[in-house]
Amino acid sequence: MLLDMVRILEREAVDVRFPTSARLDGSDAMNEAPDYSAAYLVLRADDGTEGHGFTFTIGRGNELVTAAVATIADRLVGRDIEDIEADLGGFWRWLHSDSQWRWLGPDKGVIHLASAAVVNAVWDLVAKRAGKPLWQLLADMSPQQIVDLVDWRYLRDALTPEQAVELLERRAPGRASRTELLREHGYPAYTTSAGWLGYSDDKLARLCKEAVAQGWDSVKLKVGANLDDDVRRCRIAREIIGPERKLMIDANQTLGVADAIRWASALEDFGIWWFEEPTSPDDVLGHAAIARRIGPTRVATGEHCQNAVVFKQLLQAGAIGFCQLDACRLAGVNEAVAVLLLAAAHGVPVCPHAGGVGLCELVQHLSMFDFVAVSGSMTDRVVEYVDHLHEHFVDPVRMDGGRYTVPTAPGYSARIKAETLAEYRFPDGPVWSARS
Amino acid sequence: MLLDMVRILEREAVDVRFPTSARLDGSDAMNEAPDYSAAYLVLRADDGTEGHGFTFTIGRGNELVTAAVATIADRLVGRDIEDIEADLGGFWRWLHSDSQWRWLGPDKGVIHLASAAVVNAVWDLVAKRAGKPLWQLLADMSPQQIVDLVDWRYLRDALTPEQAVELLERRAPGRASRTELLREHGYPAYTTSAGWLGYSDDKLARLCKEAVAQGWDSVKLKVGANLDDDVRRCRIAREIIGPERKLMIDANQTLGVADAIRWASALEDFGIWWFEEPTSPDDVLGHAAIARRIGPTRVATGEHCQNAVVFKQLLQAGAIGFCQLDACRLAGVNEAVAVLLLAAAHGVPVCPHAGGVGLCELVQHLSMFDFVAVSGSMTDRVVEYVDHLHEHFVDPVRMDGGRYTVPTAPGYSARIKAETLAEYRFPDGPVWSARS
Repeated sequence: MLLDMVRILEREAVDVRFPTSARLDGSDAMNEAPDYSAAYLVLRADDGTEGHGFTFTIGRGNELVTAAVATIADRLVGRDIEDIEADLGGFWRWLHSDSQWRWLGPDKGVIHLASAAVVNAVWDLVAKRAGKPLWQLLADMSPQQIVDLVDWRYLRDALTPEQAVELLERRAPGRASRTELLREHGYPAYTTSAGWLGYSDDKLARLCKEAVAQGWDSVKLKVGANLDDDVRRCRIAREIIGPERKLMIDANQTLGVADAIRWASALEDFGIWWFEEPTSPDDVLGHAAIARRIGPTRVATGEHCQNAVVFKQLLQAGAIGFCQLDACRLAGVNEAVAVLLLAAAHGVPVCPHAGGVGLCELVQHLSMFDFVAVSGSMTDRVVEYVDHLHEHFVDPVRMDGGRYTVPTAPGYSARIKAETLAEYRFPDGPVWSARS
Repeated sequence: MLLDMVRILEREAVDVRFPTSARLDGSDAMNEAPDYSAAYLVLRADDGTEGHGFTFTIGRGNELVTAAVATIADRLVGRDIEDIEADLGGFWRWLHSDSQWRWLGPDKGVIHLASAAVVNAVWDLVAKRAGKPLWQLLADMSPQQIVDLVDWRYLRDALTPEQAVELLERRAPGRASRTELLREHGYPAYTTSAGWLGYSDDKLARLCKEAVAQGWDSVKLKVGANLDDDVRRCRIAREIIGPERKLMIDANQTLGVADAIRWASALEDFGIWWFEEPTSPDDVLGHAAIARRIGPTRVATGEHCQNAVVFKQLLQAGAIGFCQLDACRLAGVNEAVAVLLLAAAHGVPVCPHAGGVGLCELVQHLSMFDFVAVSGSMTDRVVEYVDHLHEHFVDPVRMDGGRYTVPTAPGYSARIKAETLAEYRFPDGPVWSARS
């Protein structure tokens, strides 16, 4: 038995950063000059398999997250990967059970971001060993296996494990036909590339035209710094995309509750589908108050929602019309599955946050799993797409006419090219050493 | 003008840890073996003044917080302290305005804990330069000056700055007489020292007897691991302390909502004054659901409440009967002032979390300021007291008959002795190098 054990032999954590602030890609009212970054982890097992995982940050402080990734991953070195595979829910709880580390969150901030990288790397490793892309690995699990991935301690008042099993069992008969649909048609996307706040009106107009020409059904604009500017920019966008396509706005948390309502009111003539991150991601009651006032525009949030407990409350309070979970802000696949289950039980579509570094690569798997096994629906569901940095991934997303095509390679599509890691490693890679 | 400028010359960040896990001091159902620690900061100004500040953790990971403290404090080096003194609210917003760092929270977890150490060190420096203990420095400010310390962006839906000024102005005429009361009688405390979960029944009984003999009016027990044990321990405690003294319980976040209600119900015969941390500190709606079910026992929480936005909601939802803010979990004095104002406006008493390393030393200032200038009341208000580690502080708390006496030395009572820093520095101080 011991002889057959497959252990995790070693871990390597890398601080990798892209100097995106130079071009204002990714600029918004809150994040005026991000350098898109990843705290990146490689796990190597003694059967030769590797697991790759990361979490996303926007620059300074990525060294802290990388240090936390390394320390958390140290707990895995020497562990039997088959033990982990046999109880992936128990693994997640074990990883989060160190009380001294927990104090630093709990379940939020730097240590939770770091935990995401570790959990995601383990899932990449497990999916590769199973020879399946992650979405399929999940979609092939039984309802009980899926439910057992989740830590239910703080969630039962909104959804019990038994109710979750029942929900998944109702969807089980349709899994095969939905998998076929997915392989044939892919999964719908929307683009944020047009609307970064730092871009000029001319660039905004040009990018909106290009988005329409490329077949996008919807466009999202960053707002929240100046209302007059935002009225002008929404007018430009709506004129170009026409009355049918969807227009979303995103304030990136810059507004208080009353200002958010004022903003939505001033922009309502432009037919806003959703209003994203109107205020603090911690403010469940604030989002609920905004949601009650701005219909038919729906509130969307999630990229900064720290854990499943916050999503649970947003859903309980009727505070969101769209759930924008983040594959790296939540502590990896297990917690994302928890949120997919909660959202499905509350009838709220999940439209994951993406962009950044590699978030598109990850969340496509979560949405496809959601479609096949959890919500069973693509209605009102779109995955964010931003055309940045995909060239650095070994298995990048493949878009086709505004839709994500199904990933087929085993794993979680998380692997960054070795030459990218060497070039963009902070602070000693040539891209950065040349700047200092 | 430039010649008179007083700059912050340098900063020193120290990872200091006490091996408290060896004796199970501080053990509870969630935190089974903490090593009480501080991420400690010294700021040195070129007029010779020093500012000392820290945040509290329970061991592993303190190196991350210390690294974050150092990086955040680097932003202060070279800054004019008189500029900071002229706009302490603007200083707080500036310190929290780096969008790349903000991404790692926002306003929570490791970077927020680190920010607390930096903000607290600045306030210690400012109070020393003013020649006043911190509580008095705050209590001598005008209502508008106090309100200007706060970042109101996400708080206005619960309390406007104008309402806060009005609240403070109503209390202003009584400040002088309340200051006299305070100097004469001190501020009421309660002890947690008796009830750590790792202690045996015999030790619990002995410590409860000692608490009564020492004049304590109330005792708090840790619960949440096993209900039968907790019933037995509460019975022991209630028998010893008698029917008049107050008994509180603290589950340290171990329970879900339904279990918390079950626990409170099983223990209600013992006359529980408050039920502390029944569930996840992120669960505003969960605390509200518990509060609705367990009266007359009141819900208390706060030591893990990450920021003022969470406290705002707990107050808005009627979820807490006691607000247990933490001087280091919140980002220092400014954010604590925000929570004191919100709590006073909602009529909820603030009973700060203390214990740990130096938390008693800090929060006595906050509660005394609250009494003199904000709530104007000591009713239902007690500051936690734990008799650990005070010997390491230059200006430790002085207790008199179960009450905190008024600190008189200038500053925030945050300074740890130089010999302690040398001895307990992690990992190279002799206390730790001898263990490895």
